[in-house]
Amino acid sequence: MATGAVTLYIATSVDGYIADAEGKIEWLSEFPSTDDLGFSEFFETVDCLVMGSTTYEQVLGFGEWPYGEKPTYVFTSQERSPATNEVTFVNDAVAQKTAALKEQFDHIWLVGGASLTESFLNEQQVDTLQLTQLPVLLGEGIPLFAGGYDRQRLELNDTTSHEGGVVELTYKLP
Amino acid sequence: MATGAVTLYIATSVDGYIADAEGKIEWLSEFPSTDDLGFSEFFETVDCLVMGSTTYEQVLGFGEWPYGEKPTYVFTSQERSPATNEVTFVNDAVAQKTAALKEQFDHIWLVGGASLTESFLNEQQVDTLQLTQLPVLLGEGIPLFAGGYDRQRLELNDTTSHEGGVVELTYKLP
Repeated sequence: MATGAVTLYIATSVDGYIADAEGKIEWLSEFPSTDDLGFSEFFETVDCLVMGSTTYEQVLGFGEWPYGEKPTYVFTSQERSPATNEVTFVNDAVAQKTAALKEQFDHIWLVGGASLTESFLNEQQVDTLQLTQLPVLLGEGIPLFAGGYDRQRLELNDTTSHEGGVVELTYKLP
Repeated sequence: MATGAVTLYIATSVDGYIADAEGKIEWLSEFPSTDDLGFSEFFETVDCLVMGSTTYEQVLGFGEWPYGEKPTYVFTSQERSPATNEVTFVNDAVAQKTAALKEQFDHIWLVGGASLTESFLNEQQVDTLQLTQLPVLLGEGIPLFAGGYDRQRLELNDTTSHEGGVVELTYKLP
């Protein structure tokens, strides 16, 4: 029986973008660092990571692999070589793979991006939305939410104000 | 010299929609009423309203005109008959008309919708964003922000938690 939970923890602009028009996230650097936004405490609770292939490419662009020894599953249909021994590429259906991961791990971080988020929402595999809203209008880019999933009522769990006008909203899904 | 200020005060879903796929806003009715979300206090500060033609049609659908005797300017290229004596149809450029309204009125409420919001942001005519975020993922609909304006850094001015998991975020534009 599945027991783990999935949290979509991600930063967006006020107009809902997670990356600029070129898919880049340099615009994040003008805001407080993730350390100051409570990322470390969140990350300590995480047992495994899942991400899409575009997000994986972005993370590779950071240089050193930033997620230590936490098991990371990258949903992709392409053959790749993993950045570290902890990275596994999966090409399974989202619902099936997530059910298996939930049996194995207590807390799964859905890192992004938009496409994998849509699949997870569509398959009702997200338990918590933890959205870090950065005080900027980007005006263009890749929106986190582009629809394609069913309407779902949320329960507000927490609001946290960080420095620099950053607001973190946490919602539970039914 | 212009002295008035424009506030975009509007409710969105967590995934950023202001209306469902048919342009309807019945989904709002399952949340606390506007009275419980502080609308009355906001409305008292408003000296005039501006809205686009789709929003105007929505408001007409409410039945009785809900905005009393406050002057209301509807941006539209179509000939129409006004709902009340307070409604004026304008077909001017946004920047030009808004400059004139700012000379005449202290506080202008930009009611919506998405298209007029894009024009106002594009012409840098919005001074305050007051976003009421309702705890639901709609999954489809009309997004408030669809891009098409320049990147603008915001200043978080206020966060308010209302009943029913509704969060109100107020940002100042530069």
